[in-house]
Amino acid sequence: MTENGNLSSKERILAAGTELFLRNGYHGTGVQELSDAVGMGRGALYYHIGNKEQLLFEISMLLLQRATDAAAPAATSTESPDVKLGELARALLVHQSRYGEAWTVVLSEARFLSDEHRLEIITARDSYEAIWMQVLKDGAAAGLWREVDGVDIRGILGMLNWSNRWMQPGGALTPEEIADRYVDLIVHGLGK
Amino acid sequence: MTENGNLSSKERILAAGTELFLRNGYHGTGVQELSDAVGMGRGALYYHIGNKEQLLFEISMLLLQRATDAAAPAATSTESPDVKLGELARALLVHQSRYGEAWTVVLSEARFLSDEHRLEIITARDSYEAIWMQVLKDGAAAGLWREVDGVDIRGILGMLNWSNRWMQPGGALTPEEIADRYVDLIVHGLGK
Repeated sequence: MTENGNLSSKERILAAGTELFLRNGYHGTGVQELSDAVGMGRGALYYHIGNKEQLLFEISMLLLQRATDAAAPAATSTESPDVKLGELARALLVHQSRYGEAWTVVLSEARFLSDEHRLEIITARDSYEAIWMQVLKDGAAAGLWREVDGVDIRGILGMLNWSNRWMQPGGALTPEEIADRYVDLIVHGLGK
Repeated sequence: MTENGNLSSKERILAAGTELFLRNGYHGTGVQELSDAVGMGRGALYYHIGNKEQLLFEISMLLLQRATDAAAPAATSTESPDVKLGELARALLVHQSRYGEAWTVVLSEARFLSDEHRLEIITARDSYEAIWMQVLKDGAAAGLWREVDGVDIRGILGMLNWSNRWMQPGGALTPEEIADRYVDLIVHGLGK
């Protein structure tokens, strides 16, 4: 939230769009519903967001930006790679638990973005993954674990991101505890 | 495919529904488009499938049934749990590579199912997960790895299921090779 009137309107549109896309899907959401939900005429809506596809794109980019911002403290800390790996995982799951509904929307609806916007999303996702790759490379260089590649990274992030499908607020484990469990699984496997 | 006319019509409807839901989403797909895609009148469509929600439900149940069927040889084999784990993972990724579009539809659109149907899907998914849980429990009992719980299972299946988002036909690794990589990661972690 901000005192800037324009930005605040935009935030309200992004929040309303996320909720409507979650409930009715991208294709099941009309501009009129969005207009009703934010209490804004179509003209004002258009001024702030352009069209519906642009709205889905901005929801997606904001989410990736937030995930990247959440990773920044871990990425830039001077801790050893194993500590940083734990911090990255905790930051991701705390972020996911906070923005779970937006993640459901982006994971489910991003296939309807224009090719150009999808490419921008993939570039932003790659930037996020690069943070993990750097920490995992640093850990391998420090002798903490073996070398990793893209298959590993996608598997590791898949394990963590899949929590969007089952993690519940107030569940038996906190996001941080789930993150710690998975970091242990990533580093040590099921080995005794 | 089958020589039974009714079943074949139904299969065609399920395939057309999957394709339309993939391209336009559940809410973006009309009964008329479906009718056009299968070359069947609304009456015949209704006879075979009931309504659109029922179609999404049947697509989802068929997919889970196929995944469960694909797991059966591994589940019932007399191999040791570590071999069975590898077979389960390979069967899942081969299945995913074959039915990747249907998986995208089910993962993205199942939130629009009725509560009753969603519950049936969750029950079918739990039956599938129970196959993995049994093999992992057997392996722990045999001293091959530590005890596992639901958090482990969901992480392991998350790692494998996430491949739906990136695995490509003709990619650098076959589904079997990706499965083997992930089984190694699951059992040994990144440990050297």
